[in-house]
This record gives sequence, structure tokens and C-alpha cells, in this order.
Amino acid sequence: MEKTFSYHGLHTFARNVFQKIGTSSEQAQLASTSLLRADLRGVDSHGVARLSGYVRLWDVKRVNTKPAIRVVHESPSTAVVDGDAGLGLVVAPRAMEIAMAKAEKCGTGWVAVKNSNHFGIAAHHAMLAINNDMIGIAMTNASPLVAPTFAAERLLGTNPICVAIPAGKQPPFVADFATTTAANGKLEILQRKNQDAPLGWIQKRNGEPSVDPNELKDGGALLPLGGDRDHGSHKGFCLGAWVDIFSAVLSGANYGPWVPPFVSFLAPPADPVGSGIGHFFGAMRVDAFRPTSEFKDHMDNWIARFRSAKTVNGQPQLVIPGDPERDAETLRLREGIPLNDKVVADLEELAVKFDLKFLE
Amino acid sequence: MEKTFSYHGLHTFARNVFQKIGTSSEQAQLASTSLLRADLRGVDSHGVARLSGYVRLWDVKRVNTKPAIRVVHESPSTAVVDGDAGLGLVVAPRAMEIAMAKAEKCGTGWVAVKNSNHFGIAAHHAMLAINNDMIGIAMTNASPLVAPTFAAERLLGTNPICVAIPAGKQPPFVADFATTTAANGKLEILQRKNQDAPLGWIQKRNGEPSVDPNELKDGGALLPLGGDRDHGSHKGFCLGAWVDIFSAVLSGANYGPWVPPFVSFLAPPADPVGSGIGHFFGAMRVDAFRPTSEFKDHMDNWIARFRSAKTVNGQPQLVIPGDPERDAETLRLREGIPLNDKVVADLEELAVKFDLKFLE
Repeated sequence: MEKTFSYHGLHTFARNVFQKIGTSSEQAQLASTSLLRADLRGVDSHGVARLSGYVRLWDVKRVNTKPAIRVVHESPSTAVVDGDAGLGLVVAPRAMEIAMAKAEKCGTGWVAVKNSNHFGIAAHHAMLAINNDMIGIAMTNASPLVAPTFAAERLLGTNPICVAIPAGKQPPFVADFATTTAANGKLEILQRKNQDAPLGWIQKRNGEPSVDPNELKDGGALLPLGGDRDHGSHKGFCLGAWVDIFSAVLSGANYGPWVPPFVSFLAPPADPVGSGIGHFFGAMRVDAFRPTSEFKDHMDNWIARFRSAKTVNGQPQLVIPGDPERDAETLRLREGIPLNDKVVADLEELAVKFDLKFLE
Repeated sequence: MEKTFSYHGLHTFARNVFQKIGTSSEQAQLASTSLLRADLRGVDSHGVARLSGYVRLWDVKRVNTKPAIRVVHESPSTAVVDGDAGLGLVVAPRAMEIAMAKAEKCGTGWVAVKNSNHFGIAAHHAMLAINNDMIGIAMTNASPLVAPTFAAERLLGTNPICVAIPAGKQPPFVADFATTTAANGKLEILQRKNQDAPLGWIQKRNGEPSVDPNELKDGGALLPLGGDRDHGSHKGFCLGAWVDIFSAVLSGANYGPWVPPFVSFLAPPADPVGSGIGHFFGAMRVDAFRPTSEFKDHMDNWIARFRSAKTVNGQPQLVIPGDPERDAETLRLREGIPLNDKVVADLEELAVKFDLKFLE
């Protein structure tokens, strides 16, 4: 069962919750916008469904709601930002601003972030660049759920990458994907429906292939994009490792199996190798390479050509990266955001906890 | 059947061939080193096996052996390089030098290249950064062999990405992979052995799945990493598209289905959207983010932890990206490079054509 809520109603509620845990009104605004962007874009696992999770991390003092976010190392085109254990939802857009300011001056800007928390969806941050005629890149590491090729333990997070590229008349190209065969949210859907997963998504605790979507609760693992060695899972491992190293080894955050868990009931590793979780952002001014109008004309041509490609039987057209999420955003801004009962109950509990009125 | 040849012998022969087609001795040296690096690292499809292919492109005037390689647009951290239809084997290391010089000054350097030709293996160019304590990135587009998710035509090349990251006591992390389930070279091996390919590598001309490794000769296509929609092929499509756009839309090269073919007997598209094929390079100074020794210590820790992970039954240890190629390089430098009869015959033909002595 689900109910539908307006974007603005949920945004206001989330903002109030963030303020109740001590976030400034300005940062609460930023955080809610980052968070709700996931709901708008149809990534239900990363939106208000996680609000109570952030609060529980604050409950156990793993989120600092008055962070002094600061640059601790820099060069003309780079910076390392210490997020001071702030909400990733706030730290990430700040870091992206710094990347864009660097790009303004010297063509590109690259910011590695340590001491942060989960930042919602990568696309929200990467897309901040688009309005400035820049290409945006965002990646983050995450707590270990993924077994690399040949491994029988979890060493990497689902470590997503987003690349957002402006176009002219066409909508932007926005590729935002976990570097696993399937994101964790897809397993949750199968769990609810009591359905098997395709082979190549998950493995058992001992490393054997499995189709049981509940395998993770039993010590199993998600698999890198590719699924198995024959289908290129070593390449998915390369991608996840790349994200991990850029996000955490460059910045001084925790990496690999040391990344702290998102859930408050699991303690972070006792022997951290860095601070918090790590992100990595890039901003590239299009006109640092070629006149913007020329670039946009060719992006339009690229997108139009791919969108009109010959399709396999029954497919109306190719899906250009960003199409489904943009459609969801349009629809949900207009018609509201559907939330399932469990999420609604969660938000109602938050309303009680903080003496707020939840939406009717 | 195969015979084994010394690295230095093959390098000298390739250098002589490049000089015979008009390349300066300095550029011939660069080109041979780029080319032979593939043979050393065990990527047999991209090494001297392709020497006659480059010569045939020169025969039909699609390679300029006296290129004026030049920067046509730049900012402090970026440049666009016009390769003047030169050998990618020469243009790529030049572009990488420019990226590294930019990084020296402002932390990172990013170079998009147009009007180039195939550049051999991406790892060779990306790894140039490692000796300068920089992270190196190299990507290139290539002629269309890959059908994106839901497409029944070839729109992208195998578009490889390499990320090379220096470590301290550990060898560097070098991930170099085609953004398809399997590289074309792997199909050629199956063709020779008369074996089927796993499902998810290729599709028929009409878009139906296939296991026939000869499908490409019949208008079929390679598939993006993931293989099918259920296993994340839309993410492989995102990766291939990313490489294509950075390499060609940023630089002004041909993209998507307009990328000219490597083989000389197929004419380039009559309606080009840019010049030649495109590459994209990055160099990031490690100390633009964090003191180099600190970074290297953590890279060592990262690699050591992953290398010693618990493995699935029967696997001695995890493969860290770059391990197999480095092992091949060590072995082949010492014991020589094995070439199959077809490649040897090809090289002997080149020797006759240019009145050179081929190695005994």
C-alpha cells in the first residue's frame, strides 16, 4: 500500500526534521533539497525513506549537524574538503561549489572529500554543474556490501558514479549508476515480492552464486557490474575500486572494508584508516575545451542520433541516460511522490519524536 | 603455431617500418614503444599484430606520418589537441605530456584529442603519469561495434578506459578495460578454437542474443558491459557513451556511428561530424590532494588488504587490476613475445614491402 505526498510538503517536513536535530536553516534547506531529489527522480531507496536513518546516526553522535566544512589542502584546480562529520547531503553540494569555483578560474575543478556521511543520489550533485555550462562528476564510496571478483567477503560499497553533461535543445545526458550489477534497492523490491534475483546479482557468504534476494542478511554479497568473471565482473571491480580510491585514498577517508556502515545499529570499524566516508567531485567548464554552442550542438546531435537508433523488437526507442529519471521528476513534481506504508509510518514516528505535524 | 621474438627485435623492426612510411626517427621510437607495450602486457590484439593495419591506413592516406600535433584551445588545466591525422601511437603520448605539464602547474591536466587514429592500449599512456607521482587516465573512442541496450545497430566502439594509480611498495593499480562485456580479441580466440561465446557477449544483426563468435561478420554487435538489461547493460552503455562524449564531443572528433573504421578497406562515413577519432587524457598530481608519501602508504594498505581477501573456493588470491599485465610484461621482456603464424607472415610481408630484414 502507498500514499502520495506533494514534493513541497515532504521538503518542508524534512527541512523541519533537519532543523530539529540542530542543522541551520540554510543547511536544512540544502539537505532537504539533496534528499528529496532522490524521491523526485524515482530513486525511492535514497530519499525520505532514509530520513529516519540520518536521524538515528545523529542519535548515536555519528552526524555533526553544525559542521565546519573546510578546505584542508588545495591547488589551483583541486581541493580536499573535510566534511567535519556533517550530513553528506550538505557537504556534497558545498564541495561541488568549490569544484565549480576552481573550474571557473582554471577550466576544471576536482574536490575529494573526507569525513562525510551518505550524500543521497550522486546525480543531484553532479547536475549542479549543468546550469553553469559545466560537466559534473560525482562519486562516493559506501559501506562494504560488494565482493570483488573471486572474493568471498564484502570489500566495497555499491560505489556509484554520476556524469552529467549539458546539451542544447536536448535534455542533459545524466548517467548515474551503482558499479554493481544491481543496486541494493532492486533487491529490496524482490524481497517484498518474494521473487528470485537473476544469477549474477548476488552470492552466498561462501562465494557461491545465488538467486535469493535475502542473501545479504546472511553474510552474502552484491556482485560488481558484470556479475561473474566470464561476463566482465573484474571490470565492475575496477570501477568500484576506482571510486573507492578517488573518494577515500585521495581524501583521507575510510576505504574498502573500513567504510563505516550507514545503519546506526552497526558500529564503525574499531581500526579506521581515515575519517568518515569519502566522495569525489569534478566540474569541467565546457568552454575550456571548445565553444559552448558548438559543444551543445554536437551533444544534441549525439543524443538525437542515439535516441532514434534502430531498436530490438518491441522497444519504442533507446533510453538515453537520464531519460527515465527526468520523466519521473516531471511526473512527481506534478502529481506527488508515492511512499509505501513503512516509509509513511517511519515519517510519522519522526513527527512524534520531534513534535512536528506530519502532512495529511 | 607460434614463434617467440625478443622485445628489442620487434621494437626495432616496428621502428624501421614506421620510418619507412615517413615517420621521423623520434616519432617512430614513440610509436614502436606504444605499440609494443601491448605485446609486452599480453594484449596481443593491439600490438605488432596491428602494424600492417597502420601501414594500410597510411597506404590509403588516412594516416599522416608527418603530423603537426598542436594545441588548438586551452585553459590553465585543459587543452584540446589536433592530432593532424597522425598515428594515435604518437599523438597520445604527446597529449599525455601536455596533460602532465598542466598538472605540474595547477594540480590536474585534462586533454581532449581530435583528428587522431588508434592509439594502441590505453594503459601505456595512462601509466606515463605514474612515474611523476600522478594518477593517469586515458580513454579513446573507436569504430562502432557495440549495440547499446535495446539497440539493433552498432553505435559505439569498445571504448576503453584506463585509470593508473601509483602506490609505494606495492606495484601500481592499473585498471584498463573495454566498456563491453568482452573485448573483440576474446571473440577472435573463440573463433580460432571454434567455441561458443557465453550469452551476453554478442547479439545478432536483428538484436537477438547469440553465442556465435562470428556474429560480427554478419552485422551483429558486441554488447555493453553487463550484457543485458537485467544484468546492467545500460550501465555499460553509460560508460561507453561517457568515453565517446569526452573523447569526441569535447574535442571535435567523430563520435558514435561516425567514428572511422580502423580497417583500410572500409571507407570512413561520408558525412563526418568531426575529425578522425578522439581520445581523452587526464593527469592528477597526487600531492595536489594529499602528501604523496601518505597517499602511497594508504594505496599500499588498500592493495595489500584486497590482495589478501578471503577467496572463493580454489582461487589463490584476488587479482588486483594490473597484476596479470605486469606479470606478462616481466615474463615477455625476459623470455620474448610469442606471435602466431598469421602475425609472423604479416610482418614478413611488411619486411618484403619495405626491403627490411625480418628477425630470425
